[in-house]
Amino acid sequence: METIKTLLNHRTIRNYKSDPIDDNILDEILQAGFRASTTGNMQVYSVIVSKDEQRRKELCKLHFGQQMVEQAPVLLTFCADFNRFNKWCRQRDADPGYDNFLSFFTAAIDALLVSQNVAVAAEAHGLGICYLGTTTYQADKLIEFFDLPQGVVPVTTLVVGYPNEDPEQVDRLPGEGVIHHETYKDYTPGDIDQIYRHKESLPMTAQLIEENQLETLAQIFTFKRYTKKDNLHFSRVFLDALEDQGFMNHEE
Amino acid sequence: METIKTLLNHRTIRNYKSDPIDDNILDEILQAGFRASTTGNMQVYSVIVSKDEQRRKELCKLHFGQQMVEQAPVLLTFCADFNRFNKWCRQRDADPGYDNFLSFFTAAIDALLVSQNVAVAAEAHGLGICYLGTTTYQADKLIEFFDLPQGVVPVTTLVVGYPNEDPEQVDRLPGEGVIHHETYKDYTPGDIDQIYRHKESLPMTAQLIEENQLETLAQIFTFKRYTKKDNLHFSRVFLDALEDQGFMNHEE
Repeated sequence: METIKTLLNHRTIRNYKSDPIDDNILDEILQAGFRASTTGNMQVYSVIVSKDEQRRKELCKLHFGQQMVEQAPVLLTFCADFNRFNKWCRQRDADPGYDNFLSFFTAAIDALLVSQNVAVAAEAHGLGICYLGTTTYQADKLIEFFDLPQGVVPVTTLVVGYPNEDPEQVDRLPGEGVIHHETYKDYTPGDIDQIYRHKESLPMTAQLIEENQLETLAQIFTFKRYTKKDNLHFSRVFLDALEDQGFMNHEE
Repeated sequence: METIKTLLNHRTIRNYKSDPIDDNILDEILQAGFRASTTGNMQVYSVIVSKDEQRRKELCKLHFGQQMVEQAPVLLTFCADFNRFNKWCRQRDADPGYDNFLSFFTAAIDALLVSQNVAVAAEAHGLGICYLGTTTYQADKLIEFFDLPQGVVPVTTLVVGYPNEDPEQVDRLPGEGVIHHETYKDYTPGDIDQIYRHKESLPMTAQLIEENQLETLAQIFTFKRYTKKDNLHFSRVFLDALEDQGFMNHEE
């Protein structure tokens, strides 16, 4: 089944050819995205297409200098967007009550489901993709860069282009490590050892530990990749962005 | 292209046959889900499979009595989950700093991308799906129902089963209404009229306005479906759930 194969075959691509994406293909991919489920058929999201070379260079800096951002021909920034819906309500004698956290999260879900459909559609066309987690870290700067009005917050970005590499597929935890039946079965120390055994046994893991002069793979995450200090800082940035964009008004 | 067709052909199904889903098919669908991109390959999500009839009846009540929840053979509740990762860190002499809002949102993105892959894979198998927005509204009750530990919050639910209806595809806004080029182009009153014209012209819209004795479609959203009062209430429920589950610790 081609669809299942496309899904199972996913690889994140970090090295792109400069070849442009045909407008018809890009449009087909986006249209496939917009068919994703959306809360109450409100479609409370927007997608910003970045193709301009100079703008992609600036975006590259905002996304912590990840070269692929400049290299790939298209960047798609997915935003939670109640601005359009709010404007429609006001033009139609309806008073929108969507300036709160639940509305933000509803819109974020909408935007993320669209983004994953777009990722799948792109891969079906032989394109490669990479998600940029830096989108939430730099929410304030991206809001300025894209001139996002009240009610709009960027939640993720897809780099899209033709792959200039053919990487091995990365590991995943065994399915039974992430599936629960009927209720959540919390993990014993033995379960944890078993679930992470394969990942910890990979040659790549030994190499990373050696390079970082640490003792365990987990320490690479907590000391290097996703530190408490950074997380606290970026939590503040992102929560402030939600407030600035008008999603944290919780007074009756 | 089968994959694009699958995506473009999406319909939300609200009426299901009681036929069970073969375990191999369910497993293949979930495995396709787990191939979705995940931040730093951390896989900070869990999926809870509900098949038990009695449990589905109880879930039906929690999801505001939507009959399909009881009717369909499988419910999949997708959770943002740092519990497993935190336990692994602690067992490996690493101090996890993932008790903050950014970490929650990172995990929520992971969970939502998996859910959409699962939705697409299910549809490729001829199954129908429906997302339940009630998941965040009832986060506190679902946490209790599934016995979710610290670090785990439900973010969405998929109803999955064989369709017992063949509904028309619903409308979507024109693509140019949700796509922006390079920067966000804010909407003029004329833009809003144009973007919503098709939706407002549908016979279904006239019927809904008539049934609800209101003047505009937008009023059905603000007065009936997604009211400010409900949004404020459920914002509080969801933010409290994030705090209770240990995702709002922002002290240095």
